Amino acid sequence: MPITDRRTLLQTAAALPLVAATTKVAFAQTSSEAPSAPAKPAQAKDVTRTLAHYVVTAKYDDLPANVRKEGVRTLLNWVGVAIGGSRHQTVDIAIAALTPFSGPAQASLFGRRERFDIMNAAFLNGVSSHIFDYDDTHLKSIIHPAGPVASAILALSEMQAVSGKEFLNALVLGVETECRIGNAVYPNHYDVGWHITGTAGVFGSAAAVGKLLNLNEQQMVWALGLAASQPVGLRESFGSMNKSFNPGRAASNGIFAAMLASKNFTSSDGMIEAKRGWANTISTKQDYNEITGDLGKRYETALNTYKPFACGIVLHPAIDAAIQLRNENKLTADQIERVDLKVHPLVLELTGKKTPREGLEGKFSIYHAVAVAIVEGAGGEKQFSDRAVSDPTIVALRSKVIPVITPGIDPAQVDMTVVLRDGRQLHRRIEHAIGSVETPMNDKQLETKFADLADGVLPAATVRRVMDACWNIENLTSAAEIAKMSVPA
Amino acid sequence: MPITDRRTLLQTAAALPLVAATTKVAFAQTSSEAPSAPAKPAQAKDVTRTLAHYVVTAKYDDLPANVRKEGVRTLLNWVGVAIGGSRHQTVDIAIAALTPFSGPAQASLFGRRERFDIMNAAFLNGVSSHIFDYDDTHLKSIIHPAGPVASAILALSEMQAVSGKEFLNALVLGVETECRIGNAVYPNHYDVGWHITGTAGVFGSAAAVGKLLNLNEQQMVWALGLAASQPVGLRESFGSMNKSFNPGRAASNGIFAAMLASKNFTSSDGMIEAKRGWANTISTKQDYNEITGDLGKRYETALNTYKPFACGIVLHPAIDAAIQLRNENKLTADQIERVDLKVHPLVLELTGKKTPREGLEGKFSIYHAVAVAIVEGAGGEKQFSDRAVSDPTIVALRSKVIPVITPGIDPAQVDMTVVLRDGRQLHRRIEHAIGSVETPMNDKQLETKFADLADGVLPAATVRRVMDACWNIENLTSAAEIAKMSVPA
Repeated sequence: MPITDRRTLLQTAAALPLVAATTKVAFAQTSSEAPSAPAKPAQAKDVTRTLAHYVVTAKYDDLPANVRKEGVRTLLNWVGVAIGGSRHQTVDIAIAALTPFSGPAQASLFGRRERFDIMNAAFLNGVSSHIFDYDDTHLKSIIHPAGPVASAILALSEMQAVSGKEFLNALVLGVETECRIGNAVYPNHYDVGWHITGTAGVFGSAAAVGKLLNLNEQQMVWALGLAASQPVGLRESFGSMNKSFNPGRAASNGIFAAMLASKNFTSSDGMIEAKRGWANTISTKQDYNEITGDLGKRYETALNTYKPFACGIVLHPAIDAAIQLRNENKLTADQIERVDLKVHPLVLELTGKKTPREGLEGKFSIYHAVAVAIVEGAGGEKQFSDRAVSDPTIVALRSKVIPVITPGIDPAQVDMTVVLRDGRQLHRRIEHAIGSVETPMNDKQLETKFADLADGVLPAATVRRVMDACWNIENLTSAAEIAKMSVPA
Repeated sequence: MPITDRRTLLQTAAALPLVAATTKVAFAQTSSEAPSAPAKPAQAKDVTRTLAHYVVTAKYDDLPANVRKEGVRTLLNWVGVAIGGSRHQTVDIAIAALTPFSGPAQASLFGRRERFDIMNAAFLNGVSSHIFDYDDTHLKSIIHPAGPVASAILALSEMQAVSGKEFLNALVLGVETECRIGNAVYPNHYDVGWHITGTAGVFGSAAAVGKLLNLNEQQMVWALGLAASQPVGLRESFGSMNKSFNPGRAASNGIFAAMLASKNFTSSDGMIEAKRGWANTISTKQDYNEITGDLGKRYETALNTYKPFACGIVLHPAIDAAIQLRNENKLTADQIERVDLKVHPLVLELTGKKTPREGLEGKFSIYHAVAVAIVEGAGGEKQFSDRAVSDPTIVALRSKVIPVITPGIDPAQVDMTVVLRDGRQLHRRIEHAIGSVETPMNDKQLETKFADLADGVLPAATVRRVMDACWNIENLTSAAEIAKMSVPA
């Protein structure tokens, strides 16, 4: 569920043991400085340089244990979705288009045998990982953090020696960079139409790649500047292949930026905060304290979440409610007169397609999502296939789903009443759906999701080895092992 | 001189014989529909598709003679600036950074021996052509049209068979696409901070490449959609290498978009005009009539101009005035007490650097530009070198240049008074500087500019052959000849 303002996150974060320690530090500082008013945004001075300084100096040993743990979970979840999407025609098409232009076979494609230069590999893996809309979500900014960052540095790790610890540190720093920059402009930037994963994601890729290239502070400033010059993605493309294009292109643009900066290709020193820099040009909101406040103390990585359902997070409360009522009451479609839903406006704005014709479109249809959840008791990738959206039972049921925008319902909530033909009414209100910060997927559930996604792509024994390698990333001599073992024999 | 609104262009365009015929058609239609009010913008419906339909169906034989002629001049001027910039360290650095990732050696770099895959070649040539800020300008949108488009299709022409006529048609259609889209959002989009050459340029590259790939209408819609997803460049980067990065990356992003679309990688159908599409997300102004009005009748290509001075067009009136007064009065720096300048606010906004430290920064300094023009009687690349900005005579004189923002002075104008130590005052007001639509450079002047730029890069005999091939493009069997002959032996 997207959380649309900072206050909402603060209220709910206290309930989450995983991040409580970190978050409380931030609370305390905010409170002591401004007891009754919102924290004053930092002055727009040296924002790019302060961030660059942090990224080039931050050490693996400084990462708190909960941040390391969440970084590892971020990696594991990303590898699963990248393998899962790898056989989709979106990837086939992109490979066909780009093969004639690829450089040396430097890096692997997850779940496939082809190899590409690291920029094209990062693009293709980034596309693959977002196809099912099943990747990780930083709820405060609704960025999908791993796509732009993991795609980039997993590819780079096959080109130069990168230890597991160096890799995890770069992954966290990339996620911090993109999520902090995203926070600074969210929600205005997203509301107007930008796909924030692609626009903020470029910074994450550039920072993580730049860290592994050992850029100095000035080079990192330039890398962030060249990243600022290459935002990717508009919300209008949602429902087409162009949506998964965005994190992929953010990954390759970030590598492009960092590689140029590593040779001293210059940019301006204040590309994030200057009058005609990124934040002022691309958003009507700029809260620079989100970027430079509490660096090395507040970790956005600790707030990352993982989806139990293969669609936009805005649909999760409704799917959760539907599955609960279905399972508890052994519901079948023919019993149902209608399904009344009280929802936040964002639900219809993002997922208002009434008659999806393809599986991908089904992910943008609250009508389909609820119907298929009731009929099949799940919200996985199979429930958003061409088969599912044309199944007569599901098509019939979706026309009985009636979402109504209702004041007092926030995007994390839903209120569902299933009215049966026999007159009974079944009611369920969801406050925090499974997969939320408050009700996170546990490690076992992440493994089940991974295995389901990799089923049919890699043998079960390989899947086990890849998952073990992800859990064990901090002890790997070479982070390249992850990608190398994630391809078919 | 940037012309900041449509009315200004209409007032001045009538004075230009080259485009009078085309422009009058547009006037007449506008007048008959709305005699006393501005034309009502077209409804935001099928904008992307209408443009795509035009691009895929437009034929070389339909191009008016003046448009062909201006297309050829656009090509010649671009080749000259690309060769001229090719030995700059910006290009050296980019080549060093990208060599490890290049695909097959498909395309040439103008003025150099290295070869790259077409996407990287287009990027590098696009960078090279903008380094001196000496490329062509579409004054209505202040887009530099050739950079993103010529870079892309010259590279493509080395990979597949493209006749000279096909090439010129694609060049014009690319320029039409980017300039029309730029017109629709200018000036708001530029004012807020976007480098419009990079943001609109991606569309030009995608359209021109897509035309030569023979995309069908739906594929062209997707190519434009994928282009919309990859805008490039912020004005904050002006004065750094990042500025010439922008047209280069626009060129390669456009190829990337068109190649994916050619394999049926999908996007939304309304990426330009949809509620959360490009124009609404990236600008507070959207005049869709600029995109779809009078397609095949009104040609933006006919309005292209070429710079006599190697810097932003906003400096040209002041340089022109300085050179005129200098030559007419045989001025030397030691005679001068001060130089008073009445200027438009944009002059100080864009070129207000008082103490440039490097040649590149000199292009963003009205102080340096006027001083060097008086001392050396020119405004070529040599006048914006590291040597020039640290020349003691010029440094001393630039502190005596006093620009004052003055109501009633438009960006095309300047009013200069040179006050001499002996008390005399020399005055010159410029209404239309050399290189403007009203006072265009002629073919001979374009050749002189080309030869000056290529001097030291290619032998004089080769330079002559390349210029002849450009003038003769319509009769070439293979457009690839242009690039192939533009490299050192």
